[in-house]
Amino acid sequence: MSSQLIVNATLVNVRDTSPVLRGMELAELPCIKDGWLLIEDRHVAGIGTMEEMPAGLNGLPRIDAAGKFVLPAWCDSHTHLVYAGSRETEFVDKLRGLSYAEINARGGGILNSARILRETPEEVLFTQAWSRLDELSRLGTGAIEIKSGYGLTVDAELKMLRVIRRLKERSRLSIKATFLGAHSYPPEYRDNHQGYIDLITDEMLPVIAREGLADYIDVFCEQGFFSPLETEAICRAGMAVGLKPKIHANQLNLSGGVQTGVKLGAVSVDHLEMMDEDAITALKGSATIGTLLPTAAFFLRMAFQPARQLIDAGCAIALASDLNPGSSPSGNMNLVVSMSCIQMRMLPEEAINAATLNGAHAMELGAVTGSLTPGKRADLIITRPMPSLAYLPYAFGTNLIERVMIDGEFV
Amino acid sequence: MSSQLIVNATLVNVRDTSPVLRGMELAELPCIKDGWLLIEDRHVAGIGTMEEMPAGLNGLPRIDAAGKFVLPAWCDSHTHLVYAGSRETEFVDKLRGLSYAEINARGGGILNSARILRETPEEVLFTQAWSRLDELSRLGTGAIEIKSGYGLTVDAELKMLRVIRRLKERSRLSIKATFLGAHSYPPEYRDNHQGYIDLITDEMLPVIAREGLADYIDVFCEQGFFSPLETEAICRAGMAVGLKPKIHANQLNLSGGVQTGVKLGAVSVDHLEMMDEDAITALKGSATIGTLLPTAAFFLRMAFQPARQLIDAGCAIALASDLNPGSSPSGNMNLVVSMSCIQMRMLPEEAINAATLNGAHAMELGAVTGSLTPGKRADLIITRPMPSLAYLPYAFGTNLIERVMIDGEFV
Repeated sequence: MSSQLIVNATLVNVRDTSPVLRGMELAELPCIKDGWLLIEDRHVAGIGTMEEMPAGLNGLPRIDAAGKFVLPAWCDSHTHLVYAGSRETEFVDKLRGLSYAEINARGGGILNSARILRETPEEVLFTQAWSRLDELSRLGTGAIEIKSGYGLTVDAELKMLRVIRRLKERSRLSIKATFLGAHSYPPEYRDNHQGYIDLITDEMLPVIAREGLADYIDVFCEQGFFSPLETEAICRAGMAVGLKPKIHANQLNLSGGVQTGVKLGAVSVDHLEMMDEDAITALKGSATIGTLLPTAAFFLRMAFQPARQLIDAGCAIALASDLNPGSSPSGNMNLVVSMSCIQMRMLPEEAINAATLNGAHAMELGAVTGSLTPGKRADLIITRPMPSLAYLPYAFGTNLIERVMIDGEFV
Repeated sequence: MSSQLIVNATLVNVRDTSPVLRGMELAELPCIKDGWLLIEDRHVAGIGTMEEMPAGLNGLPRIDAAGKFVLPAWCDSHTHLVYAGSRETEFVDKLRGLSYAEINARGGGILNSARILRETPEEVLFTQAWSRLDELSRLGTGAIEIKSGYGLTVDAELKMLRVIRRLKERSRLSIKATFLGAHSYPPEYRDNHQGYIDLITDEMLPVIAREGLADYIDVFCEQGFFSPLETEAICRAGMAVGLKPKIHANQLNLSGGVQTGVKLGAVSVDHLEMMDEDAITALKGSATIGTLLPTAAFFLRMAFQPARQLIDAGCAIALASDLNPGSSPSGNMNLVVSMSCIQMRMLPEEAINAATLNGAHAMELGAVTGSLTPGKRADLIITRPMPSLAYLPYAFGTNLIERVMIDGEFV
């Protein structure tokens, strides 16, 4: 059994138990100054202060982390990591002021991604996604949720989910797969929405269930896309085959997505740029986590999510990257954490909790990763020397990560 | 004489002549697809297309940059790189909603930086600044302006400028030094503004001139700090000993700083968050460059600079990082370029021109660096493989730099 010992570190988010954090609890980030952390058999085996380190550990090979911080690796609970083709041309078209109609006419948007994805072989999709995953692990991400939703046909949605399954099998990161067939209506169903919903529930879901290709079901619940009633019908069909809902809600409108998610007992409702009293009341009284995606708001020049209001109301909040080629072409969770403090006025403690432990819970991995807890996987970030933990979000353009350990091995 | 040859690259910002770019000219970014670039004796010695590469170059050692882009290194024309102590505690105090009075009472703000700097030995300041400079060069910065202004006493201002002189002497980066004694009023002159201005003009400037410690003079021209008349008096005193003005203007108010800078023939007026018709009219009719600092607006949650309005009016625009511990604790010019596109709607071509050639001109280094031009210094960024140049600002959280060459040597 291989053992590794980190010594002289400031250990961040040290917890014996690790429940979902709500409201004011998010500001409590338990740390050990000048501590040791033992890794055995790819798990955290022990934690303590240097003063009280057991003599038996003295013989072990040790990593001196003096002046450095050890955090749980980031838990990124909302991404579209599998896609074909970047969309920087559309980005520039938008800067030039082209209308959505013109951009669509030029083949932009989700449907552009869907068209290219359908043409891209599974092997190529896998290779590209693998390379992105590798890059994100170097930026400190240890657990990640990945959605389908650029297929929008039976074959292409299954192709995406099979790519995610291969990533799961081969990667050391913890990965959860979400079926997002209801991301948009494909062109061939533009005037037959019920026909596409039937395709999702009658053609896609049975295969996904049979092959065990997804953990969650997701729907883009927005005006002009899927209504609350349609969202509920699709989610219930997914739930009937064992997929819990995680819902795209209230990004562009007060879509009713939050209330629908809460009603269905969704693991999370994600985006939340547009929140009113009703949506906040529904969320705060529920077991559903509200997942905020600040880099998407940044990239789309929208107002940021009302993080302070949600926290002050007592909601459970997670932070995620929304990595995707259209509205958040970055999966850098360090920047997500920084931006959450700088623009949404989250405290560093709140942002770190939301991007680690609550992110883990938003993937039902709260017992596995997301905090420094004996028995959990050794998914760790070791920082460069820093004067304080608040320096991490403060120095926003700087890569402060020195090393990353995923599942007990350094990346 | 050492020669290096880069082949198969997309060469970006290739120019025979390199004047300041104004208005619509900023959108023109001349590139050579599939090109070669020869470096001899630390300078660009030749540029062309692979098809027409002289046979004589075939024997040289070559760097294959297939799929990659070669850009001139970033020219960061506004920084406060020399400082003592980060200010993340103040950052968190502001997030917690403490008032400016409370933050000042806790020793925050410029005066906090000044207090710590006065106590910090020159050698320590140099070591810290050197480490920051090294990090920025790895992020692609090849030329940089550095200001004093955290001293606010004769001794401490001279100490800062001597640190900058040592950086100049030892670094391969092109460095310009700016005397910013008029950054704020030190506590001992809180009620005697004229006394401090006299100290600047009668005590500091003569020594600075005698020892050749600065290239430029800068004043923080804002309500509550230095008025346009005071700014003019200080600048004229600097100009009398050979220092051209570069002015902090219109960050917090319509301060009249832009008009004052234009009147004095300033090399640049910097910040420009607050611009009205008068200020834009003054700037567009002048030889003065308007330097925008988007990461400072981002960090302070202010509205971004009106880049589109300034460009459309025909102004010459540069982009810089404003690296400083209070309002922009990042000197990452890649993020500055990204943010300028994403949030200020600059086109990738405009942002790259503004962060290279126009940045060079904002330091009077337009003949030395800032474009791929035979005879200029070999200050180069080689990117990782990218699908297009627009990918650089689009993929905002990703470090796309593979290698950086400063003055003909790889960092």
